[in-house]
Formats: sequence, structure tokens, C-alpha cells
Amino acid sequence: MRIHLGPEQNDHLVRAIADGGGALADLDDAEALVWDGGPDGFPDLPDRIRWVQLTYAGIEPFFRAGLIDGKRIWANASGVYADNVAEYAVGGLLVGVRQFHSSLAARGWRKDEIDPRVRPLHGSTVAIVGCGGIGRAMIPRLHAFGVDVVAVNRSGRPVDGATITLPSARTGEVWSMADHFVIAAPATADTDRLVDADVLAAMPDTAWLVNVARGNLVDTDALVDALRAGRIAGAVLDVTDPEPLPDGHPLWDLDNVVITPHIANTRSGLPAAFAPTLRENVRRFIAGEEVLARVEPGAGY
Amino acid sequence: MRIHLGPEQNDHLVRAIADGGGALADLDDAEALVWDGGPDGFPDLPDRIRWVQLTYAGIEPFFRAGLIDGKRIWANASGVYADNVAEYAVGGLLVGVRQFHSSLAARGWRKDEIDPRVRPLHGSTVAIVGCGGIGRAMIPRLHAFGVDVVAVNRSGRPVDGATITLPSARTGEVWSMADHFVIAAPATADTDRLVDADVLAAMPDTAWLVNVARGNLVDTDALVDALRAGRIAGAVLDVTDPEPLPDGHPLWDLDNVVITPHIANTRSGLPAAFAPTLRENVRRFIAGEEVLARVEPGAGY
Repeated sequence: MRIHLGPEQNDHLVRAIADGGGALADLDDAEALVWDGGPDGFPDLPDRIRWVQLTYAGIEPFFRAGLIDGKRIWANASGVYADNVAEYAVGGLLVGVRQFHSSLAARGWRKDEIDPRVRPLHGSTVAIVGCGGIGRAMIPRLHAFGVDVVAVNRSGRPVDGATITLPSARTGEVWSMADHFVIAAPATADTDRLVDADVLAAMPDTAWLVNVARGNLVDTDALVDALRAGRIAGAVLDVTDPEPLPDGHPLWDLDNVVITPHIANTRSGLPAAFAPTLRENVRRFIAGEEVLARVEPGAGY
Repeated sequence: MRIHLGPEQNDHLVRAIADGGGALADLDDAEALVWDGGPDGFPDLPDRIRWVQLTYAGIEPFFRAGLIDGKRIWANASGVYADNVAEYAVGGLLVGVRQFHSSLAARGWRKDEIDPRVRPLHGSTVAIVGCGGIGRAMIPRLHAFGVDVVAVNRSGRPVDGATITLPSARTGEVWSMADHFVIAAPATADTDRLVDADVLAAMPDTAWLVNVARGNLVDTDALVDALRAGRIAGAVLDVTDPEPLPDGHPLWDLDNVVITPHIANTRSGLPAAFAPTLRENVRRFIAGEEVLARVEPGAGY
């Protein structure tokens, strides 16, 4: 199996291809492409390329660029980074409810001010909206912290460990069913600005909102209003709209928002984290088995 | 059973005493004292007081003030706040390794700078030095995050869930056995400045140190030196020496330290959190059973 790796030759990925049974090749000679980058610079694909393996979990930029075709198998890295993002999301909830952000902002011993604002995470209910691989990785972590989980997924098929699973058609019911909310849904036309002013108003005023999906799932202006008015306790955002969030944006000035620069899953740690899955997918493709995380072009992710 | 409650009449504690079968009484008429405060203002105890229930977990100020006598039973709140402190400690590790603190300090989108510094918590080993109630509450949380635990306790009797348990006489071996360290030992003469320059030098330079015990268990000057020199990755301190940490102290200026104002267990949430234990101890004392968290005056905690 001849595989082209681009745009760069990362050692972790080179080794994974060889360990899976593949051989590196020029694009014109290859039967498969492993693309460790975004849509910019993505090559014209010869017809003999039967499989394209992307290394990102969120590939809507490839859809928007019209690159995902029906001529071959496409796979993404969905689920590969679930442990990292789950760590981030639970960590983000802890930062918020236990007031690490206030303590860091104070740069002084402000016990009288901060102590009364601390809340425990145990005993609370967290809703995971878009409960796929990341959500499933969060659930045992949340259970260990004494937290109940409510899940929303496309089908409503019960998620192991969730006390209730709602289908996405009933997402509107979830905002009054939980104390805190983690947004982990794919970015599609249906989820654009899923969290708007009405949704923010429906959440408890003690709620923390964590977004690890895509910035556009939250209406930024409505969020700024809700945070200013104290309609929710705070927000932890690893993704923003616009992204990168420009200097001078009002979100930077709010003391109840935690913004991280899209590092729940890091670019720097990506090749090492993805290598085991790549090796397995090379093995599967050579053996004629179904690859992991095959893209469903019709669903848009 | 007549019980005096002081220095103030908190509703949660009043109700817990009644629910446990006790009746509030003046100190001179009482057989037991529930003291929801520090050593300042602690009353002279009539001989008929057979039991003193303190609401703090760390009671070394009472020992220093010479208040703990052998004339009656004393109980503290050890273990009651374990869930809160365990949440804080795991949260603190996540803040550090996943660079929430750097993101918050940046107040701007600094992905190129922060992304390469993020490390996963999963796959690491955390040592809990002083693995009592707080440590036992941490272990299932850490396991859910894919973390192995090494424990140090006084006796070396194996702690459930720890891969290795060392007796405190062998604490010196632990600093090279783990990736990160949580200090949760009681403050005694043996643990004063337990973490000194040599210990900090023995830790991996990628280590995060979390102190949820007492400030004096860490040599502050040695810690400042180690953080400045990058001999460890960072420190999360809920307790400091001196405490409160004064404005202008060098620790405030370091970008790899997270200081919180003694809020792992909050003063504001204490009566509500302690009420169930108080009710149970009132019931036990009336029934002639051993109270929870009886103080061992000889051990100093």
C-alpha cells in the first residue's frame, strides 16, 4: 500500500504508516493520502487515491472548501483526542465553580471576596450537548467527581452513564435540566448559534457554560450580554467566534469568562496523539476492513 | 444531652444538633461544646464538658494554644471536607498541566506560545504525600483521569487504589517516583518544610506541586528559587507561608504559580458541609459510640 504523507513529514506519522504496513510514496504513485494540515494547500487528488485520512477531528473547513467528495473514503480524527478534550472540559468546570480564575485575576489574597463564590462540583448535574466521543470520555470523569450527566445526541439512543439522553430535536428541554453545560456538538447548519439569548436565559444563573466544539455554536454577542448581566455564572471557551478572538474584544474584559486559545486538543501534541489511530487505519485499509472515524459526507462531519 | 454551640449560632449547626438528639444549652449547663471558630475566644471549659467538637479539619492552632487537653474527648472535622479539597487538588493539577493559568494571564489569543506547553494529565503518575481522607477522595478522581497514584502515609499500610504506598519514613524516595505531587499531610514538627530545595531538585522539571495542607510544609524561599529557575513546571498553592501571602511577595510575580486564598475548603461553605457529620457525632456521643474524627492528642492532629 503506497501512501502519500503531506504537507510535512512528521516522524510520528511516518513511523505509524510504516508500522501499519504502508510505504511512503509520491502523490502521483499513491493509493492513499494522509493529510496533516488544513484545507489550504490541499492537493488535487488523482483518481487512484482511494482513501484520504485527515488528522483533524473537526473538518468543516474541508466541507466548506468543497474538498470532501464521494469518490473515495474519507476519515477524520474524531474521537482520537477525546481524552484531551474531556480533561479540558472537566478542568474548565473546576476552574469556574472553584474560582481558580478569580484567584488568578486577583494577584493578591482576596479571601473575603472569593471564598463565598466557591461552589462544589460534586452533587451537580452537567449536560453534555453533543455527546459523542468527547462526551463519553467525560462521563466516567464526571461520575468520579460525584456529578450526574444528562446527554443530548442526534438519535437520542441512550448514552452509557447518562441519567437521561435526549435526541437533538429535544435540545430545548435540556437547559433547565442541568446545573452546567458542555457544548461538544459538531458544527453543522443545525447547531449554528445553538446557544443564543433565549438559551442563556433558560440556564440557571449559577451555570457555567463550557464550549469545546466550535465558536459559532454560541452567539457571542448574546453571551457577552448574559455574562455582563450575570444571567449565568460564567463561561469557559476554548473556541470563539470570531476565532482567534481579536485583542480588544469585549470578552477579554469580563471577569467571569475563561478563554483558552484552542488548546483542549493541541496542535503541538497532535501527531503523537494521532499516530496509534493512523497505524490502525493503515492496517485496516490494507486488510479491507472499515476504517475508524469514516466521514459521512451527507451528515457534514 | 445538653450541648453548647459557640461562638455563633449558625442555622445549619443548630439544626444538626437538634436532629442528632441534642439540646442547646449555656456553657455552664452543657456536657459538650461545639466550637465553630478558631482558638481566639475559646472558652475556659467547665469539667463537666466531656466532648469538644471542632469544625476545622486542621487544628494545629488549637494545639499551639495549649487548648487540647486529655480530660475529655476532642473531635475535629478531618475527612469532612475531603471531597472539596480533592476537587480542588485535581482541578489544580488540570489548571497547571493544561495551562489554564497561562491562558488567563495572557488576556489575548496566544496560541503559538501556549499550545506547545500543554501536557495531558492522563498517563501520568501523581504522588499524594500524606494520603488520608483527602488523598482517598482524590484517588478515584485521578483514576478516572487515567492517572496512577503513589501514596505516602504514616504507617505505610497500603492505600486502596495506590500502586505503591510508602511509609512516611521513606518519603525521600517518592520525589523521583511520580510526575506530579500533592501535599496533603498534617502539619507537625516532622512535616515542617518537608518540601525543601533538595526535594524540589529531586522532582522532574515537568512536575506540578499542589499544596492543600499547610503553607509551612513547603519552604517558600526554596520554592521561589525553583520556580524561577524552572526546576519544576509550577506550583498550585491554596496555603502559603506566610499566610495570608502579603502583597508584594515574590510568589505573586511568577507566571508558573497559581495561588488561591485558602478556598479548597471554604469558610463560607463550612457549616453546611459539616452539618451531617455533626448530627452523626451528636447521635454517636449520646449512644455512647466512638465519635468520628477523634483527635489523637499524642500525634498532634
